[in-house]
Amino acid sequence: MRRVKYRRKNRGYSAVEALVDAQKIVFSPMIFQTIGTMLDLGILKLIDKKPISANLIMEELQISEYAVNTVLESAQVFGVVDCDKEGLFSVTKLGKSFLYDQMTIVNFNFIRNCCYLGASEMTESFLREKPMGLKKFYKDGDTLYPLLPQMSEIFKKSWYEFDNYYSDNCFEEVYNIIASQHPEKFFDIGGNTGGFEKVCLVKNPNIDISMLDLKANIEVVSKNSQLKKCKFYSVNMLEEEPNLPKISGAVLMSQFLDCFSKAQIKRILENIKKSADKETKVYILEPFTDNQYFEASKLSLIEISLYFTCMANGNSKMYKKSEMIQLVKDAGLEVSNIYENIGTHEYTLLECSL
Amino acid sequence: MRRVKYRRKNRGYSAVEALVDAQKIVFSPMIFQTIGTMLDLGILKLIDKKPISANLIMEELQISEYAVNTVLESAQVFGVVDCDKEGLFSVTKLGKSFLYDQMTIVNFNFIRNCCYLGASEMTESFLREKPMGLKKFYKDGDTLYPLLPQMSEIFKKSWYEFDNYYSDNCFEEVYNIIASQHPEKFFDIGGNTGGFEKVCLVKNPNIDISMLDLKANIEVVSKNSQLKKCKFYSVNMLEEEPNLPKISGAVLMSQFLDCFSKAQIKRILENIKKSADKETKVYILEPFTDNQYFEASKLSLIEISLYFTCMANGNSKMYKKSEMIQLVKDAGLEVSNIYENIGTHEYTLLECSL
Repeated sequence: MRRVKYRRKNRGYSAVEALVDAQKIVFSPMIFQTIGTMLDLGILKLIDKKPISANLIMEELQISEYAVNTVLESAQVFGVVDCDKEGLFSVTKLGKSFLYDQMTIVNFNFIRNCCYLGASEMTESFLREKPMGLKKFYKDGDTLYPLLPQMSEIFKKSWYEFDNYYSDNCFEEVYNIIASQHPEKFFDIGGNTGGFEKVCLVKNPNIDISMLDLKANIEVVSKNSQLKKCKFYSVNMLEEEPNLPKISGAVLMSQFLDCFSKAQIKRILENIKKSADKETKVYILEPFTDNQYFEASKLSLIEISLYFTCMANGNSKMYKKSEMIQLVKDAGLEVSNIYENIGTHEYTLLECSL
Repeated sequence: MRRVKYRRKNRGYSAVEALVDAQKIVFSPMIFQTIGTMLDLGILKLIDKKPISANLIMEELQISEYAVNTVLESAQVFGVVDCDKEGLFSVTKLGKSFLYDQMTIVNFNFIRNCCYLGASEMTESFLREKPMGLKKFYKDGDTLYPLLPQMSEIFKKSWYEFDNYYSDNCFEEVYNIIASQHPEKFFDIGGNTGGFEKVCLVKNPNIDISMLDLKANIEVVSKNSQLKKCKFYSVNMLEEEPNLPKISGAVLMSQFLDCFSKAQIKRILENIKKSADKETKVYILEPFTDNQYFEASKLSLIEISLYFTCMANGNSKMYKKSEMIQLVKDAGLEVSNIYENIGTHEYTLLECSL
């Protein structure tokens, strides 16, 4: 008896268990879409109120027996819902994530509405170093960014919710760290919707702050009345010699460099160095894949790399801390300080000196 | 100390664990396609030969650093590949399933090439009771079946490999069971590629066997020289009064009824009853979802239901044994015998009397 136990314990991960996990991956597109359907039809929400039979779900939501049984079976075998001996369905902890956990909801909508179809073009995207998934939305282009305004409302909503969800809660902490060094000027490269600028202007209405971004975005964001005191510069950082203003004080790039390939990151840092005075500090805010406390966050970040591959630009990814530090060095800058655990999602702020 | 242990043990599945599992589902389209890319590019196969560094993979396969790192990280965080302290990558047991386990390979190709895109139309498919996923292949139709010849070669290859993989190894056993009752005639309804007919004709060259199927299929399969001695009937079983021949002896429906809704199954069985003499036995061969020994098989069958929803006909599914027995009774037939564990995939053969 003891021997059996010993063998069982040391058997580890069996071939049969591996086969179950393999089928879970194989059929994951089905459970992924099943959850979407249960949310669309209100099934998951209804079950969550109290345990309820399949018949009552049909009645209350006016959905066919076929639909209710098929999605419930799919969800049950993946542990998203549970069924007791009386045939009453309830939502498991796993299922509740899709109803109540904001991170899960934001991630799910982003993958479902912005990435699912395009992910089918992964191999081609790698081979051509272009986001071939854009085709699936009847668009063709080198990157998603200029096409974003033409995307469907649901695409844009899910994209912006995802984009804003993570970094926004870092900005106050980042402002405090940078401001403690009393730079005369602030430059935010890739300012996006101006989230950091808004925080800075609330903290210090007299701040000298400039936002640099692509022309199309500057045209939109510069009209925001909350950003009246902000200066704007249209710059394409990917140009060989971008039209950068004279830079001094502090430069922030928040979740910006992960939108570029390693070669491009090096060039961007080199160009900043050329346009900046010697005392300038360059701050890089990133969620690094190897610096996450929670497994769920690490997994999310690593898989998001493939959004860049298939949908965004075909050549960027979420990086490791060690990779980014190497790129900073390669560009001739020096990491002078590292701030960890910024915000609620384990962001890292690299402070770099010229 | 003891108390902590006790609490830990009884804590069960924690909220944090649920969040990890939720992100695994959220990002599953990414790992699903990552595996496809690793197979396309030969990465998984190369790693499996012996543990190898990312640099060597780039060299040997002439793939960019970006592609290799991005897919390896994605595969590693899902446990498909492993990386040792020297940075050498190897394939895990889970990863090996995609290289060596025929069931996993057949399932994966089927979901990837025939179902992935269409699954995005799941909600609409349920609401309209039509396989709206067909749109994703630039086809429109009530069911997949007549459109199958127009699908791409990779679609057809994956579809037929999947279709044949499971039931083909049951036929000899099924023949033996039916033949032991010495029926004068055999009728195979929904004979597909004629797999059962071929087994019967080998076992008994003088057998009186008829195959019934849709006209388009009969036109193709009747040309098969191995089936020269088989009789063929073009029948659409969904018609109110299908043009059935006079039936006697044994009728087999192998993995046929799961292609129909409950109401359609009842009608099909009623129509067979009308055309058959009293001594006829009707055999239903199905892999029932509630009669599987392996969790992987149960999971696979249940998720395959959603292929019917999104891609095949919008209204059928894999059934439970209890559901099928109820339908047999509802149609006025009687289950007179049940044969379990048929073939290598836990099929059930229901023998029904009129």
